[in-house]
Amino acid sequence: MTMRPPATVGMKLAEVDTPALILDLDAFEANLARVAQAVAGTGVRLRPHAKSHKCAEIAKRQMALGAIGICCQKVSEAEAMVDAGIDNVLVSNEIAGRQKLDRLAALRHRAWVAVCADNAGNVDEIDAAAARAGVILPVLVEIDVGAGRCGVQPGEAAVALARHIASKANLSFAGLQSYQGRAQHLRGHEERRAAIDTAIALTRKTIEGLAAAGLSCDIVGGGGTGTYGFEAASGVYNEIQVGSYIFMDADYARNLKLGGAPVDEFAHSLFVYATVMSHPAPERAYVDAGLKAYSVDSGLPLVCDIAATLDRASDEHGNLTLLEPANHSLVGDKIRLIPGHCDPTVNLYDWIVCIRAGTVEAVWQVTARGALL
Amino acid sequence: MTMRPPATVGMKLAEVDTPALILDLDAFEANLARVAQAVAGTGVRLRPHAKSHKCAEIAKRQMALGAIGICCQKVSEAEAMVDAGIDNVLVSNEIAGRQKLDRLAALRHRAWVAVCADNAGNVDEIDAAAARAGVILPVLVEIDVGAGRCGVQPGEAAVALARHIASKANLSFAGLQSYQGRAQHLRGHEERRAAIDTAIALTRKTIEGLAAAGLSCDIVGGGGTGTYGFEAASGVYNEIQVGSYIFMDADYARNLKLGGAPVDEFAHSLFVYATVMSHPAPERAYVDAGLKAYSVDSGLPLVCDIAATLDRASDEHGNLTLLEPANHSLVGDKIRLIPGHCDPTVNLYDWIVCIRAGTVEAVWQVTARGALL
Repeated sequence: MTMRPPATVGMKLAEVDTPALILDLDAFEANLARVAQAVAGTGVRLRPHAKSHKCAEIAKRQMALGAIGICCQKVSEAEAMVDAGIDNVLVSNEIAGRQKLDRLAALRHRAWVAVCADNAGNVDEIDAAAARAGVILPVLVEIDVGAGRCGVQPGEAAVALARHIASKANLSFAGLQSYQGRAQHLRGHEERRAAIDTAIALTRKTIEGLAAAGLSCDIVGGGGTGTYGFEAASGVYNEIQVGSYIFMDADYARNLKLGGAPVDEFAHSLFVYATVMSHPAPERAYVDAGLKAYSVDSGLPLVCDIAATLDRASDEHGNLTLLEPANHSLVGDKIRLIPGHCDPTVNLYDWIVCIRAGTVEAVWQVTARGALL
Repeated sequence: MTMRPPATVGMKLAEVDTPALILDLDAFEANLARVAQAVAGTGVRLRPHAKSHKCAEIAKRQMALGAIGICCQKVSEAEAMVDAGIDNVLVSNEIAGRQKLDRLAALRHRAWVAVCADNAGNVDEIDAAAARAGVILPVLVEIDVGAGRCGVQPGEAAVALARHIASKANLSFAGLQSYQGRAQHLRGHEERRAAIDTAIALTRKTIEGLAAAGLSCDIVGGGGTGTYGFEAASGVYNEIQVGSYIFMDADYARNLKLGGAPVDEFAHSLFVYATVMSHPAPERAYVDAGLKAYSVDSGLPLVCDIAATLDRASDEHGNLTLLEPANHSLVGDKIRLIPGHCDPTVNLYDWIVCIRAGTVEAVWQVTARGALL
């Protein structure tokens, strides 16, 4: 059920079959290096989120540039990464159910693996799985620092849950998961800063409560592509969990920097490559990439290479409005689209086609594509 | 890169790991039979669309109940179906580019395969591929019967393109593709009827023009789950291309029947099975199924089994609002979600877990999952 790759090494870009996920290696490597350099020497560790790329080759490159490990969101994602040789994985999410927890605990025999919790009953279940596997599993307390999603409340509730973890024979308390997901896409720089200032204060308060209870945090993790600079400079967070920075998607590019101009720290490196398959009127054309080729939850893709907008998508069609109506047929022309949201778009592909100077340099497997369990 | 199945035969539903795509076999079989019976004996042929299920086992069941073949939307989808033993496939879409057309023509050695066209240059390219493969490829003219997407205009333009196809040494003119996609989700019965009345009139006019030019249509195809009854009764269409009827999704269920009540011809048979992984407040809980577990292009999933709504989704989280706030922990509870749009949701999964009477009866591969090329 793995589909054939749309390209082979050495092909010209124009020869790549479509729809394909293509990666501009120069832009990608510059993005990789930028965050690595931003945290180097600060004492803050980099633990990029693999949910964005699901690609072991990319995880290895992140670690080669200094990342101390990765985050995953699913046990099956962590399994795929450990299978590929990644030896340090934080599952930055709650995991419920015996099947998943037994698999998670088994991984601990092969790699450093940790998980998050926000519920005492779930902690009991994690401990039981660790006991069955004969391992000590590090567990972080997830606190809700303003996103209003998972996580216990900062302060007393978090300290109580940390004590519960520390009391378990087969668990160790490993720190705090303090990710403010909603702050990542707040458009204004000051809005993002204010949200993270709140997250930092709530996290600091919780660390102080833990210290008073004799509990220390090896990991205080959070920070995404939209805000990581704030967390990294906080003196409170010691691990940064950026994911999308390597790719940049259309939605992240709508964020604004101080002064109000669009953010420009990272370049778009990830594109969906598509072919015009129908051009029935001068101002209308259709590409072969639709809802199964990109996620539309954060808006439709942006069109590169021609003056057009993509106004609607159905299962296998992307509807282009040509801003310069063309009387000659565009059928067969190939264009690049910038996905609205990179994470669920990457998950639709088995392969990432890596391009440098117009030529396919590599074709990487999306190792954990479809890793839902 | 194929992920492990979330279930094995004989398991109880509650033991199925999540997120999983589950199929209620009783409801599914009733849906299958309903359309098969509706067209049986009418002289109208059934050619269901495999883009909805991408599953060879389902295609075989459709053919066992009288379908004369299937539709696919991609060459790679057609390849997967022919590999699995389906011997009659209409690619109900335009296909551009030498790589794809060479693969399409090669398939013609192994099965009856046809394709659609709406552009003379593309017809030349299809003919060249058929010549290289040494086959005669049947080609349908796609006409725009009101959807405003692909397709030449009905009437003269369609006749001219059909003549062009018929003039080619390695092509045969096979008929008309007259699918009105936008009509499928018009909410009111009379709106849908009016749209299809227009499509029927435009198709009839084109058939008359073709007849005057000495060209006959083996296939006049169209009709989706929202409108197939109109096309089937038209006396003009002779093939029906329903797809979603086997599953029914939340969006199709918003259509209304004559009189204004919701449609009830088909039952929901397809669900995303999910586990509550976090329940941090009495009125809020989070399931382990998000944007990588269902498509949200046609709205968020509907919640079954508990009194709750799913109000927001992120990559790996579905945010539930509990209409009956619960003070006991729901963590570990499993619930079913009805996807907003079945086609792109199925494409996220490697496996369909088939349930009857609360037990896993079979686990089917999603044979053409990710078949983009």
